[in-house]
Parts: sequence; structure tokens; C-alpha cells
Amino acid sequence: MKRLDWNALDPAAQLQALARPAQSRAEELRRGVEAIVAKVRAEGDTALRELSAKYDRCAIDAIEVTVEEFAAAEAALAPELKAAIEEAAARIAAFHRESAPRPVAVETAPGVRVERVLRPIAKVGLYVPAGSAPLPSTALMLGVPAGLAGCREVVLCSPARADGRCDEAVLYAARVTGVHRVFKLGGAQAIAAMAYGTGSVPRCDKLFGPGNAWVTEAKLQVSGDPDGAAIDMPAGPSEVLVIADGKADPEFVAADLLSQAEHGPDSQVILLSPSDALLDRVAVEVERQCAALPRASIATQALAQSRLILVDSLAQAVAVSNRYAPEHLILQVTEPRALLDGIDSAGSIFLGAWTPESVGDYCSGSNHVLPTYGYARSYSGVSVASFQKQITVQELSADGLRAIGPCTATLAEAEQLEAHRRAVTLRLAALEARA
Amino acid sequence: MKRLDWNALDPAAQLQALARPAQSRAEELRRGVEAIVAKVRAEGDTALRELSAKYDRCAIDAIEVTVEEFAAAEAALAPELKAAIEEAAARIAAFHRESAPRPVAVETAPGVRVERVLRPIAKVGLYVPAGSAPLPSTALMLGVPAGLAGCREVVLCSPARADGRCDEAVLYAARVTGVHRVFKLGGAQAIAAMAYGTGSVPRCDKLFGPGNAWVTEAKLQVSGDPDGAAIDMPAGPSEVLVIADGKADPEFVAADLLSQAEHGPDSQVILLSPSDALLDRVAVEVERQCAALPRASIATQALAQSRLILVDSLAQAVAVSNRYAPEHLILQVTEPRALLDGIDSAGSIFLGAWTPESVGDYCSGSNHVLPTYGYARSYSGVSVASFQKQITVQELSADGLRAIGPCTATLAEAEQLEAHRRAVTLRLAALEARA
Ligand SMILES: [Zn+2]
Ligand SMILES: [Zn+2]
Repeated sequence: MKRLDWNALDPAAQLQALARPAQSRAEELRRGVEAIVAKVRAEGDTALRELSAKYDRCAIDAIEVTVEEFAAAEAALAPELKAAIEEAAARIAAFHRESAPRPVAVETAPGVRVERVLRPIAKVGLYVPAGSAPLPSTALMLGVPAGLAGCREVVLCSPARADGRCDEAVLYAARVTGVHRVFKLGGAQAIAAMAYGTGSVPRCDKLFGPGNAWVTEAKLQVSGDPDGAAIDMPAGPSEVLVIADGKADPEFVAADLLSQAEHGPDSQVILLSPSDALLDRVAVEVERQCAALPRASIATQALAQSRLILVDSLAQAVAVSNRYAPEHLILQVTEPRALLDGIDSAGSIFLGAWTPESVGDYCSGSNHVLPTYGYARSYSGVSVASFQKQITVQELSADGLRAIGPCTATLAEAEQLEAHRRAVTLRLAALEARA
Repeated sequence: MKRLDWNALDPAAQLQALARPAQSRAEELRRGVEAIVAKVRAEGDTALRELSAKYDRCAIDAIEVTVEEFAAAEAALAPELKAAIEEAAARIAAFHRESAPRPVAVETAPGVRVERVLRPIAKVGLYVPAGSAPLPSTALMLGVPAGLAGCREVVLCSPARADGRCDEAVLYAARVTGVHRVFKLGGAQAIAAMAYGTGSVPRCDKLFGPGNAWVTEAKLQVSGDPDGAAIDMPAGPSEVLVIADGKADPEFVAADLLSQAEHGPDSQVILLSPSDALLDRVAVEVERQCAALPRASIATQALAQSRLILVDSLAQAVAVSNRYAPEHLILQVTEPRALLDGIDSAGSIFLGAWTPESVGDYCSGSNHVLPTYGYARSYSGVSVASFQKQITVQELSADGLRAIGPCTATLAEAEQLEAHRRAVTLRLAALEARA
């Protein structure tokens, strides 16, 4: 890990210290995905079978997971893992239910009732990757809010293994959250299938979930097409920023840095501390703990582009963090709540020594589908609201129109929209005629 | 207006009946906007002055509106218009304040506190077009929620007139809502300036507001660039769908259709009714009222691609409307609330005879920046939430980690993320050692 002293860096070097790994939307990738999307649109299920054989190296006859496969998955799964999936789903549901948007009704003038009503997005598509390992937790993070929103059709795609089956834990998590249909599809072809529909896969209004560069590029492409589908948010590699003071436990800090680093070679890990001694100790601990990890080589690659940065105070750490806008922000300081108000931008925040980032990945109740790559400056993580539309409703009585009609007419006139004005004035005239 | 009988159409003709005007993202437009964006990024304010001279045909020396210009605008404006702007702003604020997201805190397990906190998007850019006429109402619809969200820097761009000044009502509306800085910029160059920043214009995190094809294309381009800015939603031509029963007043229905049609030649207007007689009467009224409008030629062009459609019931009308997913939906029926629960997708809904769509454009309190072009299937209109981020926060006590640590460890193990598991288990071991 690179060791830096923030206050010894000039502005250009500070910019460099917080730079994300370059994410080239290479022409080759763009064209490759365009070809896959076009093929799926043109050939439907035939294309899906062919592309799965080519990219996921598996033969899928029935693209959709059958009732028998769900039953077999449930039977094969260890009871402890089933219980953990159910327990996590329950806590995720508890938090997401409480933070779901509420209907609103306001009388903005006598006789003018303005409301906000909520409607589920009818058909949603969830993508659950299975790159280096299957991710049942992602099925929970997407399936639970989709269910709470009341989406009519919840579709999930996840690539099959070489044996043509989907991971048992992913299937069980999908079942627990009430996902309606699961398809054995991965990569750009899964995104294209859900955005445009095929013989087997229903067309979805909005697509959710993380994925590799192909999936991300496919999501971008279909979201730019009015005939395609909306998406949850733009994506980039996962990342963590830790702010630790001199009293933080270096063993804990190192463990948190490593749990981010093991996600992938492009993960980014940043530690800010006003304590030189802590940075020293964490550096030693990271090496010690890393050596014992099964994914040591992935973590080592991620750590190569990561940084230990000395700052002059916790206040400066907060300022630097706000500039970086991390996906995950860990505050391993004695009084983490004292820093919270100063945090402008982050996906999810973890307070204190007993809150490792892993609990947010799995089962504290918050969502783990979060804005990365600086998008936390303007985007939020997935929630029930991501699966809903908020529709405004207004209803005026005759008195209501009398109350706000003149204001409407004045503004319409200023904007030279005479028909807008008359839609009001002819009604007001009708009211007068009736009176 | 085209007259159709829904139940006499085959599926292809039904699809055609609800087709939007084609919105080609022509290669020429795309390249033209790319050139403007690149020029603004490279040359900054110099490019802005040059492009304003070329496209808006005005010389702008100081790009930013000065204190003197604000004062002159206020002095020049009719008191009645100033009062209408203030009145509208107050009602928009009343509704938007009430429907703003609230912080949430949930104890998802003993010792596990999960919260959602809200943070304004720091810098936001509002675009207010001034195509055929200036739009102070759009300044209100964007400025009010930005202010309520607490955005640190609210920037507004609107093209100057030939005399190098911005419209007085737009400036006054900006001032009333607390917009911090206004720039005399229009078109793709305004979007590029706010997305990337120039010497004069601050770089913004998210851009809002309607615009012509150039503005829309520029917003799409900058939102696809991680170094650019997020945007409120994709855009298309404005539209209304009216459901009217046999008892609706044809004069009112016609006035509402025309107030949509006058927005632009590409506006779309659809009337659904189970009453043949009403469709007849509305057709006559539309012609009669249209003739008297200053924008009759614009409205006539819009009406040419609009439709009067006979349906067999109000239930069928709701089903057709859901398929279309209109930006504005007017329910001119005896019992509009009876239909409301059945509506799946719409931007904003207007109930009953005394609720013309114009009130929503100006001052009922709801927002008029709404999803068009079918995007209401998956997007919502602008609200305070559009100007905020929702950040999740979790804090575990030692007991909290004891409660949910084992579940986390089990799931991490299933996902083969050993460092995630150890971040939990080494803390649990430390707790045991201390006990
Ligand atoms: Zn993780
Ligand atoms: Zn209008």
C-alpha cells in the first residue's frame, strides 16, 4: 500500500491520491456488447442458448429455473445457511420497510388537495453475478425491496455453473424474497434479455444489480434507449475509505481493509489517519492477515493501488473523504457520531469498532447495492423507492379553482401560453354563470 | 385529430395508436453536441461567449447575472406577476416540504442500529429554457426543491434575449427560490458549462430541467461520463392523456387538450372516452377554441398527431392509459377517485372538472418536471428527493455484533469471502478474550 502525507502533497498530487482506477469504456467492449444486445433482440432464446454456451460454458436447455430445481436447491442447502439467509432477509426487510416512502396529502390552499401516491414499477429485472463466487446476498438486497414495493413481476438472472444449474443459495434467497421467476443467464445477454424480452424472458421496465464490465456496459446501453429499460445507477469497482484515530485497533482496521480488497483486483482501499503510529501498525497487520487469506493474490493486487494517508486531524479526514465520496465509509474513531454530521457524501457508513463493513454486506439491514466510483456525490443506494414511482395527484373543488385560478392565469399569461390561461378562465366563467 | 375505435384495432394498430412521435437521436445532433461539449471543456468562458453569439444571437460580456440586473428585473416586473410568482412558490414549497424524505432509525436487532440520513447534493445546476417564451414556472419548480433540500450551491442557466438580458420573471423566480447564481447561457453549451465547470460557471454534481433536443442530448452525454454530472431524468416531448365520460364538459376537455397542444408541434394529446357523443363534441370544441389562440399554428401541428379514441368502458380507458404511461393524466369523469387506484403509471394526475392541467404547471404545489415519452413506467417527477442523497448508517454495540455476527460469518463463508468472515470473527474473539 502506498503511504502518503496529505499535507505534503501539492493539489495535483492530492487529486492523484484520490484517483480511481481508470475505467475505460473501451471501444472494443462497447462494440462487443452492442453485438450481443443486437443478437438477443433479433434471435431471442436461440441467441441466449448460444451465448451461454460461449461465455458461461454451460448448456442450458430450459432457460428458466424449474420448480424441481428450486426444490432440489432447498434440499441440498445446509440448514445453517438457510437460516442465515432467512435471518438476513428479515432484517433487510425490517429496515427497508421502515424507510420506504409514504403517501402524502396536503391541502395547499382551501379546496386544493395535492397528494403523492406510490406505485410499484410493474416489471423489474434483478441481476446477480456469480463471477468468482455466487452472491446470494445480492439476491436478498434486490429481492427484498422489490417485494416490499409490490412489483408485479420480479425477474432474476444469474449465470449457471458448468453443470447447467444455478447456485443453490442464490435460488433459495430468490425464493425467500418472493422473486417470481429466475433465469440461468449471465453477462450482457442477461441484461439484453430483460431489457427487450425474449420468448422465455419477460421484458422489464427497470434493471438492478452489480456486474462485471460487460454487464455494466450493457446496462448503460439499454438505459440510453427509450425502448430499453431504466437502471438502478451507474457502476464502478467497489471501494472503502476508513477513517481511524490513534486509538483504533489496527487488527480490526486491517481486517476491514482486507475485506474490501478481496472483492476484486480493481477494488480500492483508502485509510486516513492523523496517527502515524496507527498507519504503521495497520500496514504490518494487513500484510500479516493477507498472507493467510485464500484470496491473497486478489487482495494483493487491490492493495497495490490502495493508500495509507496521513492527515493532520479528523476534520481533515472528513474533508478528504467528502472529496472522494466513498461507497463504504468506516469511522473507526472513539466518537464516530461526532464526525457523522460533517459527512456529505458516502454510500453507507459504519460507526465504531464493532461495526465491520461485512455486516452491511450481509445482514445489518441496510442495502449493499451502493454508488461507487464517486457517484455517491449524486446517487443513493438501492431502497424500496428504487422500485417505485411517486405520482402526484391534484384535485380542486370549485372553491379551490377560485382560490388558485387567478395565480395560474397570471403566470400562464407571462409565459404567453394563452390556452393554459383559458383552461382556467373558461371554467371560472362557467362557475360565475352557474352562481 | 385522428378518430379511432380501440376495439376495432388489431394489436399492431393499437400499438400504432399509442406510438409517440419518433425521437431520433440523429448522428448529426449527437456529433454537433459532442463538438460543443468538447469546445466548452477546452476553451471555457471564451467558448461560451462565442457559442452564445452564434446560437442565441446575443453578446454576453459578463456571463453571470449581476446584482444590478436582478434589481432592474425586480423593478421592471408588474406587481401582479411578482405576487403570482411568490404565491406559486409558497404552495410549491408547502407540498414539496411535506413530501420530502425523512430520516429513519431502526433497531434491526438488539444493539444494531440502522439509520438513513439525508444530505443535499452539494452543487446542482438548473436549466430553464426560453425557446418560444421564458419559463419562470420552471425556475420555481427546480429552485424550490433545491432550496428545501439545502443544496450548497444552486446554479441556474437560461439563455439571454437578443438584448443580452435574461427574462425578468425568470430572474425574479430564481431570486424568490434562493437560487445562488444565474448565468446567461442556453443550449448544449449551458449543460456542458455546468457539468464540467468553466472560469465563470461552477461545476455541478447534478443537472435538472427540460430543454430542446440539443439540451436533452447534452444531458445524456454528460450523464454517461463519470467526470460529467448526473441528470434528473431522460426527456421527450410533453404529452397529456384525458379520460372523459359522457358527462364531461366538452368545452373543458377541449381547453385541456389545447393547453397541452400549444406547448409545441411535437406535443402529444390523447382523449379516451366510452362516449361517442363526447368525442364528437370535443372535436368540434377543439376546432372552435383553437382558431382563437395566438399559438393556433403550433397547436394545429400537435393536434395532427393526436388521437380521439373510443373505448368500451372507463376500465378499458385506464388499461390503455397504463399502457401509454402519460406525463399528464386528466380524469374528467364523475367519480375520478374510483379510477385512481387502477392507475399504474403517470407523471401527474388531475381529478375532476375543476382541475385543469394548467394548475399543475404553475401553482397547485406539485412539480411540473415530469417523466414523458413513456418514462413514467419507471421514473418519477422531480421532488426534494431528487436533490438529496440518502445515506445509510449502521452502528453495532458489542452485543449487536454478538447478535448478527454469526449470520454474517455464515453468509460470507457461503460466498467464499474469507476476509469478510474474519473481520467479524476476530472481533468476536477479541470480545471473548476481554470477557
Ligand atoms: Zn464487501
Ligand atoms: Zn402545460
